[in-house]
Amino acid sequence: MSELLDKSDKRTKYCGEFTANDIGKKVCVMGWCQKQRDLGSLIFIDLRDRSGIIQLAFDENTPKEVYDKAFRTRSEYVICAKGTVRARGEAAVNKNMPTGEIEIAVEEYKILSSSLTPPFAITENSDVKPELRLKHRYLDLRRPDMQKRIMARSRLAKITRDYFEENGFIEIETPNLVKPTPEGARDYLVPSRVHPGSFYALPQSPQLYKQLLMLSGFDRYIQIARCYRDEDLRADRQPEFTQIDEEMSFVTQEDVIAINEGFLKRVFKEFLGKDIQTPLPRLTYAEAMERFGSDKPDLRFGYELVNLTETLRSTGFKVFADAIQSGGSVRAIKIDGGAKFSRKEIDSFAEFVKTYKAKGLAWYKFAEDSTFSSSYAKFLDESENKAVLEKMNAVPGDLILIVADSKDQIVFDALGALRREIAFKTGVIKSGDYKMLWVTEFPLLEYDEEDKRFYAKHHPFTMPMEEDLQYLDTAPEKVRAIAYDIVINGTEAGGGSVRIHVPEIQQKMFSVLGMQKEEYEEKFGFLLDAYKYGAPPHAGLAFGFDRLVSLLLEIDDIRDVIAFPKVQNASELMTGAPAPTDSKALSELGIAVVREE
Amino acid sequence: MSELLDKSDKRTKYCGEFTANDIGKKVCVMGWCQKQRDLGSLIFIDLRDRSGIIQLAFDENTPKEVYDKAFRTRSEYVICAKGTVRARGEAAVNKNMPTGEIEIAVEEYKILSSSLTPPFAITENSDVKPELRLKHRYLDLRRPDMQKRIMARSRLAKITRDYFEENGFIEIETPNLVKPTPEGARDYLVPSRVHPGSFYALPQSPQLYKQLLMLSGFDRYIQIARCYRDEDLRADRQPEFTQIDEEMSFVTQEDVIAINEGFLKRVFKEFLGKDIQTPLPRLTYAEAMERFGSDKPDLRFGYELVNLTETLRSTGFKVFADAIQSGGSVRAIKIDGGAKFSRKEIDSFAEFVKTYKAKGLAWYKFAEDSTFSSSYAKFLDESENKAVLEKMNAVPGDLILIVADSKDQIVFDALGALRREIAFKTGVIKSGDYKMLWVTEFPLLEYDEEDKRFYAKHHPFTMPMEEDLQYLDTAPEKVRAIAYDIVINGTEAGGGSVRIHVPEIQQKMFSVLGMQKEEYEEKFGFLLDAYKYGAPPHAGLAFGFDRLVSLLLEIDDIRDVIAFPKVQNASELMTGAPAPTDSKALSELGIAVVREE
Repeated sequence: MSELLDKSDKRTKYCGEFTANDIGKKVCVMGWCQKQRDLGSLIFIDLRDRSGIIQLAFDENTPKEVYDKAFRTRSEYVICAKGTVRARGEAAVNKNMPTGEIEIAVEEYKILSSSLTPPFAITENSDVKPELRLKHRYLDLRRPDMQKRIMARSRLAKITRDYFEENGFIEIETPNLVKPTPEGARDYLVPSRVHPGSFYALPQSPQLYKQLLMLSGFDRYIQIARCYRDEDLRADRQPEFTQIDEEMSFVTQEDVIAINEGFLKRVFKEFLGKDIQTPLPRLTYAEAMERFGSDKPDLRFGYELVNLTETLRSTGFKVFADAIQSGGSVRAIKIDGGAKFSRKEIDSFAEFVKTYKAKGLAWYKFAEDSTFSSSYAKFLDESENKAVLEKMNAVPGDLILIVADSKDQIVFDALGALRREIAFKTGVIKSGDYKMLWVTEFPLLEYDEEDKRFYAKHHPFTMPMEEDLQYLDTAPEKVRAIAYDIVINGTEAGGGSVRIHVPEIQQKMFSVLGMQKEEYEEKFGFLLDAYKYGAPPHAGLAFGFDRLVSLLLEIDDIRDVIAFPKVQNASELMTGAPAPTDSKALSELGIAVVREE
Repeated sequence: MSELLDKSDKRTKYCGEFTANDIGKKVCVMGWCQKQRDLGSLIFIDLRDRSGIIQLAFDENTPKEVYDKAFRTRSEYVICAKGTVRARGEAAVNKNMPTGEIEIAVEEYKILSSSLTPPFAITENSDVKPELRLKHRYLDLRRPDMQKRIMARSRLAKITRDYFEENGFIEIETPNLVKPTPEGARDYLVPSRVHPGSFYALPQSPQLYKQLLMLSGFDRYIQIARCYRDEDLRADRQPEFTQIDEEMSFVTQEDVIAINEGFLKRVFKEFLGKDIQTPLPRLTYAEAMERFGSDKPDLRFGYELVNLTETLRSTGFKVFADAIQSGGSVRAIKIDGGAKFSRKEIDSFAEFVKTYKAKGLAWYKFAEDSTFSSSYAKFLDESENKAVLEKMNAVPGDLILIVADSKDQIVFDALGALRREIAFKTGVIKSGDYKMLWVTEFPLLEYDEEDKRFYAKHHPFTMPMEEDLQYLDTAPEKVRAIAYDIVINGTEAGGGSVRIHVPEIQQKMFSVLGMQKEEYEEKFGFLLDAYKYGAPPHAGLAFGFDRLVSLLLEIDDIRDVIAFPKVQNASELMTGAPAPTDSKALSELGIAVVREE
């Protein structure tokens, strides 16, 4: 049976905090048994807490009752030990351990809890199946690497709040039980007990509330906010996720960018000890697509896109010619040293671009000995081949990869993804290298071929660029938004926009989105009303907090920076959520489960 | 049409921050028109932002176009003005305004937004119907008093996080989509799209997760956590509310109390500028009931309960005698100076105690001239009457109020509530007076007469007091818990307990609560499993954050410290949440609305 703590059991400090300065002191430590070693007449126990490990020593001078308990102690038993700090014998010093010079000669000892043998060892970088880790998350979180990550996340939250508070931002909590959004296909719904048949939604973001807070005159708002999205989970998505949510009044895009560059500067300095240079580079959306085939370009390496359309405009090679003649393009990337890739690897690249709807991948391998092999060279005439090599600045050792399509977007998507895919293979990306930029001037709208209508690319409250307002009626596809993303190492870490604060522009925006007056009045009436009572110009931004933590810690799986994450199918393996509930609870809510046969 | 900001429109500082030191400077201000006064050849505009007000001045030297726009400006128009700070003429100085000595002579002027006439004036303490305020919350929040409250709340959150961070607490986010609790009659349920027929619950508190975090070795946890409870709303309850949620490992009750006394000391000093003396007073639950008839006693005034049971044990007055003989009690409070209350007022007190199930209220009015009137004196003999007055230490001017009942709890509830009700009427409670205490040694269990079983008073994970463990099988009603509440001015500001970390005690607790092994294994299996792998002793506490803010600001209505609160019936008047949703969304979730006919 477990022993209980009493008031006199006061921990001196954490295990990892003892040093040679403590030698001779009577101390009390508490923690978990990392390892017990029984050497016959000696027992050693490594005692672990969140700070590290200290060695407990038991020998012939230890009271028998204490020695017997140490003898019985197994991994993960919870211990309270009192004793005297002493130097280890010279031979026993462990230089790999911060407390490796010392140990505690134990005089009093309580087993506060015993433990079954855990299903996996509580050690760093243990190679355990993710499902097992998540099922026993309370044990997984004991592992030192997980401890560090969760503590780092806490530190980042603190740095964030401190920075924004110093800059006059007010933390305001917005509701989590909100009105379902009209097209909220991805809303989590919450049935109301008081109003049967009515539902709350969990917010996909505090967007509307933070805009209303600007109308309320709070001027600068910050919230580390939980958001919810009910959709198929990708590797970096969770049904509930956290964002650093900001909004500012009486500002332009430049003010939002400046505040957030200051924030990133602070984070990189305090969190990683790195100085970053501001202002950060910027690319317009158009430039980013043209050069990197992506609106979240990874600047840690080159492999930029080159437009070969003009170079090959009069080619007889049908694959290229067709793409060009139907208004598309031929573009290429050059992989420095890429000639070392095998045919098999190049074939796998061709497979890769098909997932982005590219019909194929043309390639040219320029070997170190200046010979070449190519999938397309035989279809071009000599001058065309030469022109391509020149345009690409190709030198021996390079690999040229070409995509042609009648749709520019497919060319961009395929090559944009491919350059990053290959970069991870060539090792051109170095750990600890951070490349950030702003992408600006996003298109305001996206045309959906299927629905035959425009959708807002960011959201319907995004302000068009002033110089493009003129096209809103006549050529909406040309209108650029005052919207900006912050991209770190090829990942969108955050994004935002200047909002529409002028009711007339908002109404026009709704019209462009195909809504009649009655429709948008019904859907957004309270918001449109609010804007009639004096709205300040305002703009904001949100960082994906989980994503920012994982970027800073260079962790691929976002679940490793969340204490209790859900898996791909949105369930939590430890508790088994979600779960069926009893029909009484449902009938009180006025709903029933409908089973499809 | 609204004018837009451009990059050159940079606010110098907030309106309320200008002083005579700025005289002569060219400045730019932005904000809302609080008031426009047109004096013929002069126009004044009070421009408001979150910091305060500055006066804009327009006269014959103002460019005509600017003057015309100022002329058109109405209340709540949003303005960007540039000009030069100057001293006001001596006669125009407004001593009631921090910026009352100065004004800005405006040279450039943009109307960024116009405004309809708001449905109520944007002024402090405006006497507007709560429903109207909440419907136009974005306007209500513009009022300076609401601005101050929401900003104060933000400041309290900052103080809280700083304090706990300095004390080694780690902020960890726990999930908001959790497994429904087995008896979660008050859970909000969230249907799962991926698992039709299954539900998440929104957490009533992070209780289980924070305990698991202690098992994970994080040692000290803090979260300002959103919690959800689907129940009929009382004045101080919201369907979603915020708590300061804490948990600590390797501690006893004393450590939790010490940390939180340090927190309150910090809060009162930094937030209110008050020094509070620690350690705070403590009362056991039994003492609190005996003296104040309440487990959340208000110590700002006396009116303590006096037990007259022994004094009246042999009385012939049936009302008192019956109560005593059936094992109940007769208790009284004395209201100093209460003889001034009229019969009508005393009758209203009698009505008041009936809401607490008391059958009546006996009273004795001891007038200043030493005459008396009484509802019961004629039924007692002279010595009994004398004994009561002596026991009550009554002096002329006092009012004695007596409740007798066969159930002590009814006597306590009635008098406990009555003493506070009367204190609000006598004016004995002074603004700015704070009286805090800890209430400890709560009963572990409550017996429910209807269900004929015990329920956990705090929650089923609360540790019994060690000396009472022996009664757990034989006399569970006698067992006290290691549980503690922090009470401020008669309100439970927070509460917590030491948790059961010993599986055997936890299992016994479930048995006492009437659960068989299969039942608790099914309901809490994952938790019981977790405790088998080495659980540290742990304990925690949670403050109601909304309530703490309202206590510190001395605000009765908790809705006044929440930016977007819900009303009594759990709806939000501004957006109309909750709302019906379309059947397509429901069928995707595999549920249907069932209408009762």
